[in-house]
Amino acid sequence: MYDVAIIGKGPAGISAAINAIARNKSVLMFGRDSKKVMLSPSIHNYPGFVEIKGPELITKLNDHLSSLNITFSSKMVNMVYTMDKYFAIQAETDMFEAKTVILAVGVDFKKSIDGEDKFLGSGVSYCATCDAPLYKGKTVAVVGYNKESIEETRFLSEVCNKVYFVPAINDDFNFNNNVEIVKDMPLRFEGDLSAKKLILKNNEISADGFFVIKDSYPLKTLIPGLDVDGAHVKVNRNMETNIKGLFAAGDVTGKPYQIAKALGEGQVAALSAADYIDNLK
Amino acid sequence: MYDVAIIGKGPAGISAAINAIARNKSVLMFGRDSKKVMLSPSIHNYPGFVEIKGPELITKLNDHLSSLNITFSSKMVNMVYTMDKYFAIQAETDMFEAKTVILAVGVDFKKSIDGEDKFLGSGVSYCATCDAPLYKGKTVAVVGYNKESIEETRFLSEVCNKVYFVPAINDDFNFNNNVEIVKDMPLRFEGDLSAKKLILKNNEISADGFFVIKDSYPLKTLIPGLDVDGAHVKVNRNMETNIKGLFAAGDVTGKPYQIAKALGEGQVAALSAADYIDNLK
Repeated sequence: MYDVAIIGKGPAGISAAINAIARNKSVLMFGRDSKKVMLSPSIHNYPGFVEIKGPELITKLNDHLSSLNITFSSKMVNMVYTMDKYFAIQAETDMFEAKTVILAVGVDFKKSIDGEDKFLGSGVSYCATCDAPLYKGKTVAVVGYNKESIEETRFLSEVCNKVYFVPAINDDFNFNNNVEIVKDMPLRFEGDLSAKKLILKNNEISADGFFVIKDSYPLKTLIPGLDVDGAHVKVNRNMETNIKGLFAAGDVTGKPYQIAKALGEGQVAALSAADYIDNLK
Repeated sequence: MYDVAIIGKGPAGISAAINAIARNKSVLMFGRDSKKVMLSPSIHNYPGFVEIKGPELITKLNDHLSSLNITFSSKMVNMVYTMDKYFAIQAETDMFEAKTVILAVGVDFKKSIDGEDKFLGSGVSYCATCDAPLYKGKTVAVVGYNKESIEETRFLSEVCNKVYFVPAINDDFNFNNNVEIVKDMPLRFEGDLSAKKLILKNNEISADGFFVIKDSYPLKTLIPGLDVDGAHVKVNRNMETNIKGLFAAGDVTGKPYQIAKALGEGQVAALSAADYIDNLK
């Protein structure tokens, strides 16, 4: 069991990791380099650097992380289960346990597809690795918002009979023959007890299962029972959420979406988590 | 009139300055390099630096400040007056005006001398430069907690007939003949309508006026009407205090007393101040 599981590897998550280690806690970290920081051509308000390029800052932050004894997982976290005095974290097909969780997943304003929430777990899935076996020899459709969706589609095409791929990204797609690429805009899922159809702007796809592959999941899906306000988690000044032992930091807690704010909140979240652990008995 | 007056030049104040400038606001800054940071032999939790010495960090932060168009004052702020839609800031004998104030003065747990608050303005003063004329040709006593108190004592010795100097610091004191150094521990002020005596552990000093020269003033003295909780200012997540246009950041807002927290809060305070200014009509 880890002391602190940190979901997110942006500035908030990194600051949380550094400070949890400083308090002698074991740290498990999920996530990938912050795209937002990576894509910043020039940052002028990171105190200590008059000007720094996003990728250069990422390198510095990662160097800092590498100097510490942290366990990393590249798996995508699907769900955090609140147990009695600890958390179970499902990341694709793996399960991890931690005494505390720090949510530092950033903020994502991509709108869900109509019906996505309603049919989630009933024909709609966020995780091909997890749910592919349910659709062996059947027909599925993938709505792909990131590069990983290409991999996921490839994997599904080996398990399923037929795969429709609806990309929201541009890339050279190189798939098996049983993959059909449909360049169109997803509007809504339709069905009865489970999703049966994906309605597109100019077309529709009938399938046995639907996968939505994107960088972040709706918070309510990720952590049932979490008190949220739209795309943000509600926190107090100690970065505590409404769930004991669960803290949040960075863009996910609200505006301003800024690096120094994220660093500060990551630090406070980690120190609050350390206090919480020290008081667990 | 400045857009933003920042009181304090520690990490919170510096981060606030950087971000106010980023929002195109004019900045007036009071304060000196953070002693706390300066005295840190090795800092491990400033994200981006695996390890950095305090003085080296101060140099980097000051380099960042120097790259910006900021007005600095080395004067000590005595009082912030809340006017209608702006603030008047008394710094020794100078007056400044600003639309907003960001309080980033750090935290000071030095206990006041008993009676110090009660007699402030009635025989007890925090500012020799301001109040020396009141005691021309008379007898005063100085309780000195910092190096500046030596200068202040020298200045008073030129105006007053007799100066008692009660140092809480070690130094080579080189004063006029009318200065008497009393090495003893101050216990309390006594008097009726105004302070008449400083009672020390082994002695007592009768004088017409008393000066207490230290690095920070009690918050309630500095900003009348400010909502405080002991040594801390009450703020919300936007770093707003109970006074409109007055924000706070860093150690003064409470624990943890940490650099990254201060950077984040300084940033949020500056962006909140910028929003406030943009909405002033």
